Amino acid sequence: MVQHSSPHLNAAFAALSDATRRGVLEQLGRADASITELADRFHMTLTGMKKHVGVLEQAGLVQTEKIGRVRTCRLGSRRLEDEAAWIERYRQLWTARFDDLDAVLEDVKRKEKTNG
Amino acid sequence: MVQHSSPHLNAAFAALSDATRRGVLEQLGRADASITELADRFHMTLTGMKKHVGVLEQAGLVQTEKIGRVRTCRLGSRRLEDEAAWIERYRQLWTARFDDLDAVLEDVKRKEKTNG
Repeated sequence: MVQHSSPHLNAAFAALSDATRRGVLEQLGRADASITELADRFHMTLTGMKKHVGVLEQAGLVQTEKIGRVRTCRLGSRRLEDEAAWIERYRQLWTARFDDLDAVLEDVKRKEKTNG
Repeated sequence: MVQHSSPHLNAAFAALSDATRRGVLEQLGRADASITELADRFHMTLTGMKKHVGVLEQAGLVQTEKIGRVRTCRLGSRRLEDEAAWIERYRQLWTARFDDLDAVLEDVKRKEKTNG
């Protein structure tokens, strides 16, 4: 049975539902960056980037640290393991379901041939 | 380079960010169901379930068909392949990034020993 009531799955999938936030994760996968650097790279205002980083931080995907006047962002400890596992199990269900439907269709065809 | 500007990734991840919608996908992975059956199973109003199914339909994850007065839902043609691929690539980036940091730390420790 697939589990579907995990709040952290909600937060992580919501965080991933925005192209800029996915881009930020990819960027931080290559090197840590300040909010200012991220805002520049993604052609956003500081305020806009702060919001995106806040969503990623809430989901545990990014950690930030303020040193002096600079807030540095790095990848958080969550490695999207549960999200990968949910999607993988869903894909198995999906495949099994369409295999079932194929079998039903084959059965119908065979019976039609026998009766025809 | 990981791609991050796909609108269908946005829609699919947003659809997955709700526990009820994930539950509906799992349920339809076992058997087709009417909106009424889904509403009953998830203890929701018909209106609430229609909205959730609408979001899943927009994301290509569910197909619906109205026959007479009953709207039947089944899994859509999208198998979350791109979503699985995005997460997998991210996990590789994540692992490489933390391996890099480990290497840097080891290097610092080694130098401290040599100098100490």
